[in-house]
Amino acid sequence: MVRVLLWGMGEIGSRAARMLVERPQVEIVGAISHQVGVDVGAAVGAPEHGVTIVGRPDDVGNVEADVCLLATDQRVRDLAPQIEWLLIQGTSVIASGEEMIFPWASEPDLAGVIDAKARAVGRTVYGTGVNPGFAMDALVLCLTSCCASVRRIDVVRASDFSPYGPGPLRSLGVGLEPDEFRAGLAAGTVDGHIGFRESIGAISRALGWAIEEFREEIEPIVTTVERRTPHITVSPGRVAGCAHSAEALIGGEVVIRLSHPQQIEPAAEGAAVGDTVTIDGAPPITMQITPEIEGGQATAARMVNAIGSVLDGPPGLVAMDELALPFATPLGVPGTRVRAGAA
Amino acid sequence: MVRVLLWGMGEIGSRAARMLVERPQVEIVGAISHQVGVDVGAAVGAPEHGVTIVGRPDDVGNVEADVCLLATDQRVRDLAPQIEWLLIQGTSVIASGEEMIFPWASEPDLAGVIDAKARAVGRTVYGTGVNPGFAMDALVLCLTSCCASVRRIDVVRASDFSPYGPGPLRSLGVGLEPDEFRAGLAAGTVDGHIGFRESIGAISRALGWAIEEFREEIEPIVTTVERRTPHITVSPGRVAGCAHSAEALIGGEVVIRLSHPQQIEPAAEGAAVGDTVTIDGAPPITMQITPEIEGGQATAARMVNAIGSVLDGPPGLVAMDELALPFATPLGVPGTRVRAGAA
Repeated sequence: MVRVLLWGMGEIGSRAARMLVERPQVEIVGAISHQVGVDVGAAVGAPEHGVTIVGRPDDVGNVEADVCLLATDQRVRDLAPQIEWLLIQGTSVIASGEEMIFPWASEPDLAGVIDAKARAVGRTVYGTGVNPGFAMDALVLCLTSCCASVRRIDVVRASDFSPYGPGPLRSLGVGLEPDEFRAGLAAGTVDGHIGFRESIGAISRALGWAIEEFREEIEPIVTTVERRTPHITVSPGRVAGCAHSAEALIGGEVVIRLSHPQQIEPAAEGAAVGDTVTIDGAPPITMQITPEIEGGQATAARMVNAIGSVLDGPPGLVAMDELALPFATPLGVPGTRVRAGAA
Repeated sequence: MVRVLLWGMGEIGSRAARMLVERPQVEIVGAISHQVGVDVGAAVGAPEHGVTIVGRPDDVGNVEADVCLLATDQRVRDLAPQIEWLLIQGTSVIASGEEMIFPWASEPDLAGVIDAKARAVGRTVYGTGVNPGFAMDALVLCLTSCCASVRRIDVVRASDFSPYGPGPLRSLGVGLEPDEFRAGLAAGTVDGHIGFRESIGAISRALGWAIEEFREEIEPIVTTVERRTPHITVSPGRVAGCAHSAEALIGGEVVIRLSHPQQIEPAAEGAAVGDTVTIDGAPPITMQITPEIEGGQATAARMVNAIGSVLDGPPGLVAMDELALPFATPLGVPGTRVRAGAA
């Protein structure tokens, strides 16, 4: 029986909760979120579960959780105090915040502090998701295991943001005039994708590449036709999404290029969607996933499916290159490090 | 410094040796193969390396190796005595033999013996490769980590065998009349792909699926046009390869289907090549690698790239679901479980 604490029940946290309430090997021992007083099962459209959501960590009472699924914030600096509190309770952490998939990229000092505190209490802290956390990094690394050498890696994740609501659309600048998009970039209200530094950090640490230069580029995708989703209608000449990319260089040569065009209704102008990985190596590998791996459900699944390997993981702050091969645990068996037995 | 023993220097073993002689963090401490008396560097087209190939394990002298790359045989029953000898020397093992990627499928009793002996000496035994070992299993599992649930898995690996020589072509029945192909199947001289039971075993153990029924089918691919490779010419009406597939069922429903058409010059009749994975899950995932991941170089790379995680692995006989996320170690850093540090 694995005891899980849920902290943050927005889209990702709720989806993770939905997976967990059905798993007999999981005991949800607490839930912290805005829907204070609501039963955690009822909050996610499942039968009554017997655990009431509280609003603040101190209201959980005696925290006796093996692991917390932490889906509250995107940035390490916002997550660090929450993680430190969890470690004091003796709880390992699986965080969905983008920067947490490789915290050394954005906050090396805080990463060191978290690592030291986790080691001191013998617990594991890990960040995961689909992007960053899989499509542009873990999956790429897994493919390189077939290579005797790797010269360069190119990844394109072309996403359809039509299902997403106001929050994500705002961060892409969807609906703005191109001038407003640029002003939003300057003001920080438009920020595109968070995670390029993290994906590049994770890949380059694993491959042993010492990146010398990092570049990022963000441009509006201006539509020439009207595009409409359940959440927004964008008229011609306005922003339907953003083309965000990053490059990592060694010796003046690009060794990693990550490109992430994100827009609503890409089909309206014939733009393809999908995840494409091109490894210039020996042997070369070209991989395509069509359409792109859907982000919301898959991010929650990545968190839940990581429970087993985090509980078996080394103490400290760890990244994807330090944990077991990930896989689905659909039968509700979060700890899957079985050691023998035929199929 | 990692001390490596090489045992078996056929195509796979030689390619692995070629990778290792260039890695400063690796010391090749011995090599066992048919080219007795030849320097291991010279044997693989590299500069003199200072290690002379011997013909029998007892001729290696004092074996002080951390790990042996064992590329001698395909079957667990042939590999078991070699593995047991290595464990007595205190050496961990990475084997390329197809059955070793999940030895519980073909030889559960021997697997138990190997596991017990490996645990007794605190060493790790692991089998890996591209197929089985990656394209039809480890890669599939990695993709399922994005799924909240998985209902069914379909994998097609359509391979071009044009580069391969007499041995592999014979096992596919290439060049035979269809009748001779069927006679070869009955006699065991034609056997197609070894690894379906292993891939299905590895997937189903990880996902927690209790497979109730296993079916395998093998049919000749008869060419209607002349096909020619550097190694063979096949006239119309004769066998250009074989279509080999397997299915695993639960409750009468197919839950895993693996299909592996292998032929020379597939383009001659417009047959596509590639690795395709279709996961019927939540979310669904459709992945394609075109052309298929090349088998020879990639299998050697998978062995070399596993050195770090095997040395850090748990004692015993382990499979892909028990070791770390695999990735390339192109800078010659076989142990890559670094614990911190920015990119």
